[in-house]
Amino acid sequence: MLDERQRQTWKLALAYDGTDFSGWQVQPGLRTVQGELSEAIARVTGERVLPQGSGRTDAGVHAEAQVASFEIAAPVPEENLAMALNRTLPKDMRVLSAAHAAEGFHARHSAVSKTYEYRIFRGALCLPFMARYVFAYARPLDMDAMKTASAAVMGEHDFTSFAASDPDASQRDADDDDGPTRSAVREITHSEWSERGELLCYRVSGSGFLHRMVRNLVGTFLTVGRRKRPADDVARILLERRRGAAGPTAPASGLFLINVSYEEAND
Amino acid sequence: MLDERQRQTWKLALAYDGTDFSGWQVQPGLRTVQGELSEAIARVTGERVLPQGSGRTDAGVHAEAQVASFEIAAPVPEENLAMALNRTLPKDMRVLSAAHAAEGFHARHSAVSKTYEYRIFRGALCLPFMARYVFAYARPLDMDAMKTASAAVMGEHDFTSFAASDPDASQRDADDDDGPTRSAVREITHSEWSERGELLCYRVSGSGFLHRMVRNLVGTFLTVGRRKRPADDVARILLERRRGAAGPTAPASGLFLINVSYEEAND
Repeated sequence: MLDERQRQTWKLALAYDGTDFSGWQVQPGLRTVQGELSEAIARVTGERVLPQGSGRTDAGVHAEAQVASFEIAAPVPEENLAMALNRTLPKDMRVLSAAHAAEGFHARHSAVSKTYEYRIFRGALCLPFMARYVFAYARPLDMDAMKTASAAVMGEHDFTSFAASDPDASQRDADDDDGPTRSAVREITHSEWSERGELLCYRVSGSGFLHRMVRNLVGTFLTVGRRKRPADDVARILLERRRGAAGPTAPASGLFLINVSYEEAND
Repeated sequence: MLDERQRQTWKLALAYDGTDFSGWQVQPGLRTVQGELSEAIARVTGERVLPQGSGRTDAGVHAEAQVASFEIAAPVPEENLAMALNRTLPKDMRVLSAAHAAEGFHARHSAVSKTYEYRIFRGALCLPFMARYVFAYARPLDMDAMKTASAAVMGEHDFTSFAASDPDASQRDADDDDGPTRSAVREITHSEWSERGELLCYRVSGSGFLHRMVRNLVGTFLTVGRRKRPADDVARILLERRRGAAGPTAPASGLFLINVSYEEAND
């Protein structure tokens, strides 16, 4: 028997191309990021653990820097784990870094802020080499209206209108996993559109995100950009607290989890 | 019955991510570029044709600009075909352009020169968003030796040593489809390594290429770069005219068909 006191908490940063994964969370018979990482950890250390992610990205959603945590007893040197895992992981996911973390560190519970970016390709022809990593949408958009709409979600709000209406615990994108009684209030600290060449990018940071919240925000902002509803509808949608009040869900391919922040001790 | 005299020859430029295709050529039960293109043409025009490619890229090989030709009777306006096909094609292939061509134009027979590029990622960590489009190889390489080796294939040579030893007509990468009696002599007009950031790129142009020829050249140059054989071995390998004389086949993921040139009238 391994001595529990010898267990070490690890913090991993991960990048993945979400296209060929059925999301983060382990599901029987499906290829998931959590499942592949768990298998890789078992192959490297001989221990079977279920790494916890900072949030459960949906099928097709990418990560430039997802964070995962787990505890193992195997005395793997800190500098070796990332390379050892990358040798056995599939090419569509990579460990960017692996380090010891303080006891009790938990990728989701310890997170204080997350940043997502949604990327829209505006060109007439989306090359196959980019198609997996954007939402290709070439129609005219009123950027001023979209910027006004995105500013309206800044601060603390109840985001029920932008959460998936049929939350399926096995597929949610969110950090909220404590059931229907938990609050849907989140604080958004950054919400901005920017243009980078033929890409139009929406970057949003906040204390947390409900299931599908970023994709529902983007889908609503696009409806505003198409002038199908006014920018000041967003404030009203928030107050309605009803999924039907907001716009459609933008496709998963454009969404990237960019960064997860922790208190300094765990950063 | 459609009047044969009304048939119009078309020339298409195509880009594709080869990862999820079983190569160019139609094969029963497999997903191929030629097969998907044929289906799309049928959906758009109602005519079933087998478009001819400039060459048959292998499974996993990409194209920035493959050229295909076919004849149809449907009077599609020249400016509409590319967009109509792109609306129905899968996202991992795109028609870059579609135009009328002179009668008798044939994407393979009319080609006078082709250019391939092989891309090697030299960084320690190959992100998932790039992994499909490179060969990740971080070990030290003697670039001077590799440049000397690549210069040795310039000009006209018999490339039997660099052709697949078991040519399978259904999977060949080459423009040579006239059976084993045809000459393996090809003229190489450009053969050069260059560095672009963390990418090391080998660009080669020539009158034509045998099955797996570019990947076998790159595999051999890498053996030279690893100092496992001297650069001047390449001239000797060419003279041996035996596949076993050359090095291994480099992975398909790094290879791109970049350009196909035609006589001015068809360019």
